[in-house]
Amino acid sequence: MAYPGGLWTKLLALQVYGANTGVGKTVASTILLKHFMQKGIHKPQWKDNVDSEWRVNYIKPVSTGKLDDADERYVGKYARCRTSTLVQYDDPLSPHVAAVNAKRIVYNDVILSQLTRKLSEQPRSLAQNTWGVTLVETAGGVMSPGPSGTPQADIFRPLRLPVILVGDHRLGGIASTISAFESLTIRGYDVDAVIIFEANKNLGNFAYLEQQFARFEIKTFELPWIPDLENCTPEEEGKLMKAYYEGVSKDLKVGRIAQHLLSKRQGRVANIKTLADRTKKAIWHPFTQHQTSTEDVLVFDSAYKDFFQVKHTPATKGFGKSEVQTPILGPMFDGSASWWTQGLGHGNPMLSLNAAYAAGRYGHVMFAGATHKPALELAERLMKQLENPRMKKVFYTDDGSTAVEVGLKMALRAACKRYGWEGSTEPVGVIGLKGSYHGDTIGAMDASEPSVYNKNVDWYRGRGYWFDYPQVKLRKGTWIVEPPADMADQAKQEFENLNDVFNFKARGKASHYEEYITKTLDTLVKEQGRKFGALIMEPVILGAGGMIFVDPLFQQTLVKVIRNYDFGPTPKTADEHAWTGLPVVFDEVFTGLYRLGRASAASFLQIFPDISIHAKLLTGGILPLSATLASQSIFEAFLGDSKAEALLHGHSYTAHPIGCHVAITSLKMMRANSQKPHWKHYQDRWTPRNGDAQPIQVVERDERENSAATDPLAPPPVWSMWTKKTVDYLSHLPQVDHVVALGSVLAIALRDAEGSGYTSNAAAGLRDKLLATGNMGFGIHSRVLGNVIYLMAGINSRPATLEAVERALKKNL
Amino acid sequence: MAYPGGLWTKLLALQVYGANTGVGKTVASTILLKHFMQKGIHKPQWKDNVDSEWRVNYIKPVSTGKLDDADERYVGKYARCRTSTLVQYDDPLSPHVAAVNAKRIVYNDVILSQLTRKLSEQPRSLAQNTWGVTLVETAGGVMSPGPSGTPQADIFRPLRLPVILVGDHRLGGIASTISAFESLTIRGYDVDAVIIFEANKNLGNFAYLEQQFARFEIKTFELPWIPDLENCTPEEEGKLMKAYYEGVSKDLKVGRIAQHLLSKRQGRVANIKTLADRTKKAIWHPFTQHQTSTEDVLVFDSAYKDFFQVKHTPATKGFGKSEVQTPILGPMFDGSASWWTQGLGHGNPMLSLNAAYAAGRYGHVMFAGATHKPALELAERLMKQLENPRMKKVFYTDDGSTAVEVGLKMALRAACKRYGWEGSTEPVGVIGLKGSYHGDTIGAMDASEPSVYNKNVDWYRGRGYWFDYPQVKLRKGTWIVEPPADMADQAKQEFENLNDVFNFKARGKASHYEEYITKTLDTLVKEQGRKFGALIMEPVILGAGGMIFVDPLFQQTLVKVIRNYDFGPTPKTADEHAWTGLPVVFDEVFTGLYRLGRASAASFLQIFPDISIHAKLLTGGILPLSATLASQSIFEAFLGDSKAEALLHGHSYTAHPIGCHVAITSLKMMRANSQKPHWKHYQDRWTPRNGDAQPIQVVERDERENSAATDPLAPPPVWSMWTKKTVDYLSHLPQVDHVVALGSVLAIALRDAEGSGYTSNAAAGLRDKLLATGNMGFGIHSRVLGNVIYLMAGINSRPATLEAVERALKKNL
Repeated sequence: MAYPGGLWTKLLALQVYGANTGVGKTVASTILLKHFMQKGIHKPQWKDNVDSEWRVNYIKPVSTGKLDDADERYVGKYARCRTSTLVQYDDPLSPHVAAVNAKRIVYNDVILSQLTRKLSEQPRSLAQNTWGVTLVETAGGVMSPGPSGTPQADIFRPLRLPVILVGDHRLGGIASTISAFESLTIRGYDVDAVIIFEANKNLGNFAYLEQQFARFEIKTFELPWIPDLENCTPEEEGKLMKAYYEGVSKDLKVGRIAQHLLSKRQGRVANIKTLADRTKKAIWHPFTQHQTSTEDVLVFDSAYKDFFQVKHTPATKGFGKSEVQTPILGPMFDGSASWWTQGLGHGNPMLSLNAAYAAGRYGHVMFAGATHKPALELAERLMKQLENPRMKKVFYTDDGSTAVEVGLKMALRAACKRYGWEGSTEPVGVIGLKGSYHGDTIGAMDASEPSVYNKNVDWYRGRGYWFDYPQVKLRKGTWIVEPPADMADQAKQEFENLNDVFNFKARGKASHYEEYITKTLDTLVKEQGRKFGALIMEPVILGAGGMIFVDPLFQQTLVKVIRNYDFGPTPKTADEHAWTGLPVVFDEVFTGLYRLGRASAASFLQIFPDISIHAKLLTGGILPLSATLASQSIFEAFLGDSKAEALLHGHSYTAHPIGCHVAITSLKMMRANSQKPHWKHYQDRWTPRNGDAQPIQVVERDERENSAATDPLAPPPVWSMWTKKTVDYLSHLPQVDHVVALGSVLAIALRDAEGSGYTSNAAAGLRDKLLATGNMGFGIHSRVLGNVIYLMAGINSRPATLEAVERALKKNL
Repeated sequence: MAYPGGLWTKLLALQVYGANTGVGKTVASTILLKHFMQKGIHKPQWKDNVDSEWRVNYIKPVSTGKLDDADERYVGKYARCRTSTLVQYDDPLSPHVAAVNAKRIVYNDVILSQLTRKLSEQPRSLAQNTWGVTLVETAGGVMSPGPSGTPQADIFRPLRLPVILVGDHRLGGIASTISAFESLTIRGYDVDAVIIFEANKNLGNFAYLEQQFARFEIKTFELPWIPDLENCTPEEEGKLMKAYYEGVSKDLKVGRIAQHLLSKRQGRVANIKTLADRTKKAIWHPFTQHQTSTEDVLVFDSAYKDFFQVKHTPATKGFGKSEVQTPILGPMFDGSASWWTQGLGHGNPMLSLNAAYAAGRYGHVMFAGATHKPALELAERLMKQLENPRMKKVFYTDDGSTAVEVGLKMALRAACKRYGWEGSTEPVGVIGLKGSYHGDTIGAMDASEPSVYNKNVDWYRGRGYWFDYPQVKLRKGTWIVEPPADMADQAKQEFENLNDVFNFKARGKASHYEEYITKTLDTLVKEQGRKFGALIMEPVILGAGGMIFVDPLFQQTLVKVIRNYDFGPTPKTADEHAWTGLPVVFDEVFTGLYRLGRASAASFLQIFPDISIHAKLLTGGILPLSATLASQSIFEAFLGDSKAEALLHGHSYTAHPIGCHVAITSLKMMRANSQKPHWKHYQDRWTPRNGDAQPIQVVERDERENSAATDPLAPPPVWSMWTKKTVDYLSHLPQVDHVVALGSVLAIALRDAEGSGYTSNAAAGLRDKLLATGNMGFGIHSRVLGNVIYLMAGINSRPATLEAVERALKKNL
């Protein structure tokens, strides 16, 4: 499930991939292994001036064909090193066929676990001044399927062992070698060396490939091909081959290959070891007080699916074992979903390949007065998938903050135009919620109330009014809706199940909310004469504000009151979706696109905004792109005879094809994932069992794209990827103030005698403990917001992973 | 040089690629061609209910081996269609070896020209109710080199013909087929169908591949492999094969393949035809007045190197020929460098592959408290390559506008802290230049004077003072420096050569500028008591302001005066690079990174800023990423005991590994390109020939990364990628007010009786004419800024391309 990246202090482990079958992977492995079997042949460069001996190891993870003919035996015979085969099938066919024939499919996790154990054994058994070298030889070509059908390059990706690629020396071998290299590269492998056997010199494979790979700073080596064995008796063959291996393995060329592999490894380790210090020198980190920050700078070597590969530091404790024995890297569960962006898992080859496709087809093409397929089809798909009938136009920008700026420009302009406030020197503000956060550009900051984030930004001018609101909290097993200080006359409400909070019909008319909001508006607008141009808020959960779960009924009521409030004269229109009162802007950057379990978080409120803002998960978590969606009546506020009346906003990479194409791929994949059994499983676990509770309609979703998956205005099924049991348990702990869980989000607010908020350090201790937890084979990387620690799953995180994380959480709290 | 995308109204042209040699490309081609030779077999779906006949064509662009054995003959014999070979070598080896052996290397452009001509001939010769089908069969595998050594998939990329991929039916063929597909995908090809021959059913290749490709919505078809020909006489062989082709070509399966290919094509054409209208429905375009915009929405099908592939419209005139005969797509020179982002050419496979590598290795990893190799190494490389000794820290954001916001936050904070203006309710402004532009987020807008861009942004508050300045213009062959109205007492200066403008030593002390600036500052600061926190400007050329070429001596003087001016008490420091006066911010988003011919535009001014902002070309033109570089003394202004004092800014995708890794690749490639012969050639053309002029020091640049390429404070060589002759010529035309040329930029300011500026339409006519110019085989896509039309080359545009563009420009002016 989680595997340490394949890098040890005392072990040089490499994976041998072939450009095709029959290119000499086993021969190349034998030569190298035999070379290392020579006493004192190389000093391991990462330890100077030490007399050394090598322990040499060969692992064939999956072998097909009779054991007598197996590569393991062959390598053992000629190299005389330790050898092992992890999975063996008798049929000399592709493993995925042989496995079916043998009625024994060995799953990827089993192979990886065995391989990891095998690799880890070696450093543990090494005496002082001995070092290990292990070659892991794959079967067939780079993309040949393993027993489960997964291509090998994908199976072994979690270890990301450095690769020796054995090129194809035959006619056509240039093409297959380059393509094999590209398949490895797309999957984030580093090819440390290419080896190609001498064949017909006329083909020119070596000379050509050497030059090609030099462009990638990869060295290509040539080795003599095996002797002609035709018409040999087995005995003669054995003799010939023995002589061949004797000769070649001592060849200077082979020495150079070995030296090169050692020096690549040394370079990699040295780089990893200096990264943190060099970073401190060159990098100005976001959101970081560089003077007092005591956090280690974590070094991320790579990432795969739910896990980062992080260099062990004192903070991670290397999972509690000695540095020499354990891998240099360790897997860390990505508990912040990589700052809330991650959905489809890190290093997803489908996203990589699609990014490369768009880069190859377009690069970037400018978007003013122009169009391209990815931009248009993403706009069409977004509007459909979000199921908000108001949305008619999509405007692209680069990140959540710029998308918010565009949303603000749209809303303010529409309101100012309708109400005749254009050019007003008096500031026109927004209405929002306390603790809201909309991004770091100054315009986006101005839409939030003064806070620690913006108070030192010299151009920040909070422009608006921010409502206090009732919050949803799970406290000691009971879901409560806690009124704010402003509504002290209201009683705390209690709910047996979270879905009851969203059952607005059962909760009845929210007249107390209506009164409170209307009264406040009257004071602001009628008494103080203040002007407002937009309602902007994050639906359901305020993220950066501290994972605050706002009573959805309050948010719904706020929208309804604002839409009916008299801010000025409203023209009659036939457009049933025209905005009224103020344009309503939902910032779904954090809460949208399946983060909370639904395509749009607006559907939790059962109400539609006029402007909807999306980023983060839009690209499935690989690169920046954002979209601001608007209704027709918002769009029309910018129509006019002069260009100056248009929305004169645009970034150079607006609607960049790579982002748009990846986003289309991501939206498809996220939708498909949301309909898979693991989500059904998550949902079922949260379905209330008692007869009284509102039964949750798990609508049978249709695979066909063109059918609405759910009625967007129906009470949503409310569930979390985290177990109800754990969430309940946590809410009972004495040090926990309350817990919040919805969709992929779990947030735990800890009690802090010093007070809560961004500057609290209450949760930092737990964060540090989780980082160093390693009992289940991985640590947990998490982020805190003051006294709140939160964890986030990906769209396709598996229940078993999340349950392991829960166990660690319970243990460390 | 420029080729139309391979898509015609009456011709179905496809390219047949193989997963390897020996997989049956020619057999598959023969079957399909023979199938189409049957009368009335398919109606071309893009024309309903018409009795039709097919003209069937086979082209082998490059063939090796004796002509008697050539694929052309074979296909002709069995399919009985027209066949042709474009380039033939006798040696049965890889074309790149055969070409060397034959001492006859046929270059890619020759092959492409011949192929384009051959393909274009067919639609022209088709009678009514006849349609064409052409298969273009490649040699070897997807990445097999052509005669020049370029991989075939790269050679044929400009046409981007839809691909039939013939998979490998042998053991190991699953891997090679998938890898071949990935190589095509990285290059932006669409694979319309995969064909694989039946072989040993046990291998399971077809079943596996069918499933894999279905994930990409690609259909896989199986065909029966050829009869066993062992021990056949040539006569028997001929008979067997004839029977085989007769049978197979009439097989229902083949009918389905043909039908599928036709329907893919129909889908593509239909999509291209509806893209513009659907875009008008769904897309809110940047910088566009949707009510009055009369510009066609151009449909970009793809892009390659310097050229977009654009769907012909009435505006492009299809290069003046009938729709039926000419391709649906036409190449357009990317004259705006794709909104100033493009440098290394569109669809650059090196950038695609590197983007995919980082996506595969990391996806995205969050950056707070963390680091990764691409982010750190980009920071280190940027600081080195820009050669500004002040720069010590790099802060990442997503685009030029967000990078400017960060730069402003840095500068304002540093100044306010030093001068005790923190929390001042009085606005602290910036000092800038009139006509400047720093991006579209509201904070960035606030740093520019009121203009058409920001006047309707309701939260815009111009905060600062913007100097008027002398401008550099080429008018009637003479470079002049024209003083602004504010400096009416100054005489216009004239220079024989552009490099004389930059020879500050020869120009002497700029005391008139000093006086003017100091006097203005005295009025603002001493008399009016205004507060300023930064000097921000675009060095050398103000882009969006209308390609205004500011006198570099004025900009240098402004920095010097500001640095010496008394804005408040300045603490003593040992840091020789500490900022004084005001922090100086250079917005190099447009002018930096080789756009003007140098890594940093600051080097033209021979002075270093304290904060330097970079975006656009940073990623070589493929995806958004930006960096704000700062000096140590700026960084230190954010150190403190509390987190609130830190720079609390950060976007989710901050330092995203894909962007950083691509940027490293781009910086390396741009630097390498800047040292290639074509740049030397451009530079030489601008070297003054007369003895009096200051000789330009073309410093011999060193390939080694770690040597400073040039002395950054030496007078820079001043040159353009556009010819001096054309630039001179244009400046003499009566309708031209003046011309500006530097590095890759050429801007022509047209006289406009209605006045100049963003709202002028003077240049729109020329833009439209250039779009429809097609004499040299391509049109020119350009952008205008009011009365200014500009053209921009890429870093590796070739002289021949630019000279053709110049000819078109001269013809249409």
